[in-house]
Amino acid sequence: MTELSPNARALFDAKNFVTLSTLNEDGSPQTSVIWAKTDGDDLLFSTVKGRRKYGNLARDPRLSALVIDPANPYKYIEVRGRASLADDPQGELIQELSQKYMGQAYRFDTPEMERVIVRVSPEKVIVHG
Amino acid sequence: MTELSPNARALFDAKNFVTLSTLNEDGSPQTSVIWAKTDGDDLLFSTVKGRRKYGNLARDPRLSALVIDPANPYKYIEVRGRASLADDPQGELIQELSQKYMGQAYRFDTPEMERVIVRVSPEKVIVHG
Repeated sequence: MTELSPNARALFDAKNFVTLSTLNEDGSPQTSVIWAKTDGDDLLFSTVKGRRKYGNLARDPRLSALVIDPANPYKYIEVRGRASLADDPQGELIQELSQKYMGQAYRFDTPEMERVIVRVSPEKVIVHG
Repeated sequence: MTELSPNARALFDAKNFVTLSTLNEDGSPQTSVIWAKTDGDDLLFSTVKGRRKYGNLARDPRLSALVIDPANPYKYIEVRGRASLADDPQGELIQELSQKYMGQAYRFDTPEMERVIVRVSPEKVIVHG
């Protein structure tokens, strides 16, 4: 495990979109855009059981998360690590992230959706630019 | 192989930064930010021999490239495919990309750098949002 620098923490805690890479069943990479926040040195994000990124991380927890500095897009930070998954039946994290990014409650989930918290303990933090 | 929609082509041909995921030697994902352009239905980008993404793609050509619509960051397009690599001794592609993104010649390469053109024929194009 490693630490997030203050700069990395600031970029992940601002309203910046994060690009997440996971591994498909055949080992190929899959990329999507997520909301995220930090919790100490960990990154947290929310997903739903049944989504591709959930299935990918449940099978192989290795991931890469990237945030670009909006003040200088040639500067970006990549975090590599492994996901641990925890049920979030009340959707607390998606509500928190929705407040952070949208300033309002999240209203897009249907009752049958099962929210999951993805926690990433960084194994490598790479600063570019 | 599949086609890029006009919208996908427009996003990759605008001055948008593209997030590229490749596979490390241990199969874990690696992500970086690149300049890109289209050539028909292919994506093109430039790298240098010795860089991690070059080594990764030379070993395993599978990749995922993602572009976000700057007008609506909840809309993004992911292209999955395989890279083919070709030497670019004159650095023609990096010069073309530098003109596109910076409006000027690229002057950061040293003579010993060996430029490579990465060509991606999309196998899957996924539109989100």
